[in-house]
Amino acid sequence: MYKGNAYKLLESCNAKVGDRIVVKTRDNEYRGILMPRYELADDMHLVIKLRNGYNVGISTDEIVSIMLEESTSDEAIIVGKEGGMRDLTVSDHEYYTRLAMISTGGTIASRIDYRTGGVKAALTAEELYSIVPELSSIAMIDTEVLMQEYSENLTPKHWSIIAEKVGEKMMQGYDGVVIAHGTDTMHYTSSALSFALQNLPVPVVLVGAQRSSDRPSSDAATNLIGASLFAANADASGVFIAMHHGMSDDRIAIHIGTRVRKNHTSSRDAFESIDVEPAALVDINSSRIEMLQNIRGRDKGRMPIVKARFDERVALVKFYPGFDPSIIEHLISKGYRGLVIEGTGLGHVSKRCFNAIRDATASMLVCMTSQCIWGRLRMTVYDTGRDLLSMGVVPLDMLAETALTKVMWVLANSSSIDEARSMLLSNLAMEFK
Amino acid sequence: MYKGNAYKLLESCNAKVGDRIVVKTRDNEYRGILMPRYELADDMHLVIKLRNGYNVGISTDEIVSIMLEESTSDEAIIVGKEGGMRDLTVSDHEYYTRLAMISTGGTIASRIDYRTGGVKAALTAEELYSIVPELSSIAMIDTEVLMQEYSENLTPKHWSIIAEKVGEKMMQGYDGVVIAHGTDTMHYTSSALSFALQNLPVPVVLVGAQRSSDRPSSDAATNLIGASLFAANADASGVFIAMHHGMSDDRIAIHIGTRVRKNHTSSRDAFESIDVEPAALVDINSSRIEMLQNIRGRDKGRMPIVKARFDERVALVKFYPGFDPSIIEHLISKGYRGLVIEGTGLGHVSKRCFNAIRDATASMLVCMTSQCIWGRLRMTVYDTGRDLLSMGVVPLDMLAETALTKVMWVLANSSSIDEARSMLLSNLAMEFK
Repeated sequence: MYKGNAYKLLESCNAKVGDRIVVKTRDNEYRGILMPRYELADDMHLVIKLRNGYNVGISTDEIVSIMLEESTSDEAIIVGKEGGMRDLTVSDHEYYTRLAMISTGGTIASRIDYRTGGVKAALTAEELYSIVPELSSIAMIDTEVLMQEYSENLTPKHWSIIAEKVGEKMMQGYDGVVIAHGTDTMHYTSSALSFALQNLPVPVVLVGAQRSSDRPSSDAATNLIGASLFAANADASGVFIAMHHGMSDDRIAIHIGTRVRKNHTSSRDAFESIDVEPAALVDINSSRIEMLQNIRGRDKGRMPIVKARFDERVALVKFYPGFDPSIIEHLISKGYRGLVIEGTGLGHVSKRCFNAIRDATASMLVCMTSQCIWGRLRMTVYDTGRDLLSMGVVPLDMLAETALTKVMWVLANSSSIDEARSMLLSNLAMEFK
Repeated sequence: MYKGNAYKLLESCNAKVGDRIVVKTRDNEYRGILMPRYELADDMHLVIKLRNGYNVGISTDEIVSIMLEESTSDEAIIVGKEGGMRDLTVSDHEYYTRLAMISTGGTIASRIDYRTGGVKAALTAEELYSIVPELSSIAMIDTEVLMQEYSENLTPKHWSIIAEKVGEKMMQGYDGVVIAHGTDTMHYTSSALSFALQNLPVPVVLVGAQRSSDRPSSDAATNLIGASLFAANADASGVFIAMHHGMSDDRIAIHIGTRVRKNHTSSRDAFESIDVEPAALVDINSSRIEMLQNIRGRDKGRMPIVKARFDERVALVKFYPGFDPSIIEHLISKGYRGLVIEGTGLGHVSKRCFNAIRDATASMLVCMTSQCIWGRLRMTVYDTGRDLLSMGVVPLDMLAETALTKVMWVLANSSSIDEARSMLLSNLAMEFK
């Protein structure tokens, strides 16, 4: 799995993956197990798992000598093994920045299945980490596989599990949490977590990849580095998404969790902040973080509040010409408690829907957003909007995806419709435009 | 209603709106009825309805003399009256470019109701035309009010009515058709017309306004001028949308009818061509048309084919985490014939939907699009996409809104499911990405 420069060095002492080796650089000596790397990783780093459970990436340029300490006959023993789950010692707490990296699945944790030609979720966070040795210079990173799902299969129940897990990591005193996640619904999860995790002491950064990590064009490594740099170092708290920014190879955008959308099926910069600048840009070469938004700073003394429940009896319905109001009636009959409509323009639907919407408001919260994506919702400009407001429709001037997660969360965390309505209209997580 | 320069000229001969006047310029003499103008129109033009039914706008700078020919006591007689509906004479055909302007409603044909403070659809196409005297230098324009609806109230039945009307205008030999339309669903109508109107001899240009025509910032006049310049002069045929391009005050983008989306609730450049350049840009100052796409040229000898029927038993459903497959089951039970899913990413939904989708394919065409908006649909990359394809889901690599209108049109214009499926996968109106 090693090649080029790295391979030559290892060959010189006859070391194989899984062997214990000792590597000396000008400044340090490292003892540990030689970790595997993937086919398309660079040839300028060795990755060694140290005795304390952490991986370290060592640049071949800095290596002065290398020595085989103990050879193992079976290299498989360390492939896929989870590391870094031990308790940290007091000295670790004092001297290191610590990140928790949670893997949920998706392209960032997947590789091509060469049998079918398709992509399969397969990598553990540990393996993922071994692809990107640069991470070891950013922080001590503990990895954990929480689930392995393509993100189109995630439901509000998974959001709850992720939120609880992040809450746990917060209580363990990590300096930041990175969540590897499929990109398809990553913006739904980021907005859900933005409501479920309040008063966060440190940043929680979701990160994905548009191309799988064993492809030359993969954005997995650069996105992970950007996410980790921000999670470890930014004076910020809250929930964010880290993905490529524009055409640049080096700049990772950090988006506010409630203000971001996947706008492209395949490009590396598929995620865009909507009607707002990103929270920050991270230059992964210089490690420089440029804050673009006024974000609440980090404070490890702050106690996080975890409210991880969501009510799934909420539907997101896109309006279109010819829309059949019986779809709304179906939701009423199924006992739905919330409806988010993606209306047209400033927040409109056909007057043919008025009766069904009036019926719906009797048993559920009916909310309006716009399918335009950009621009403010303004329901007071035209007759149609004013009519809908007078029926009790709640104008949610935010992304439809964010509105959906907010209504699901509000209905599970309020005790009356009046309280729910008031929470919906309050800006809880920078979600309003 | 006239003010400034124009008012002074009219005052000099004591002419009021509705009076017959004679205006001499250096080159011409115009006899006709002085038409009303709106509060916020410029003060540099008089608008006169000529004996032949056409309006002409005359720049006050060019006026040499002005004379009152006949005073009317009641100016109301000409307000709101429709003109230009007479048959043209042979000489008209020979010497003039003729456009048909059809009004369907929307902001472009609306004004502020100063009583409620809201905006109401109120202007006829005739009145609209009187706001923009520059149109008379582009072509002889016949106006007709076909309907007066905000576009959120339009249904496939209205698309049929509009398509039939455009077909009529084509048979009458017009050089182009301009359709004033509300912006909320203008892109649905443009794609619907793109399928319903085939083999068009000349351009059909939908045009709207984001701000009503009696506001200083209105884009109604500039959009109308751009649409009319393109409809009258471009060597092009097919269905297009004309709206402001970027931040420019002078440039109007001409979008391909199936490749455009309203992406902003309120900005003038709300409409964007998706994954393609606009068909053309029109500079309304120089009247220059810059073609950016290879569009079939105009040919008045070409016979248009009008297939104006749509099947409304087609639903557009957006997928999201927690999506309830019972919505699909409801559509099956209602006898739907088509379903367009807005999936995530490259064209995915949760495996929780697989059973409902498998059931649906037994009785209807189930098609996939992406809620990302930009980028190609590619259902062969991941397991999820391949599983859906194997169930018979039809991948429609086009805008979801375009896919909806196409499925509605195909189901009304095919005689078997096989034929329908083959039409869906054929590129009929530049709709595929």
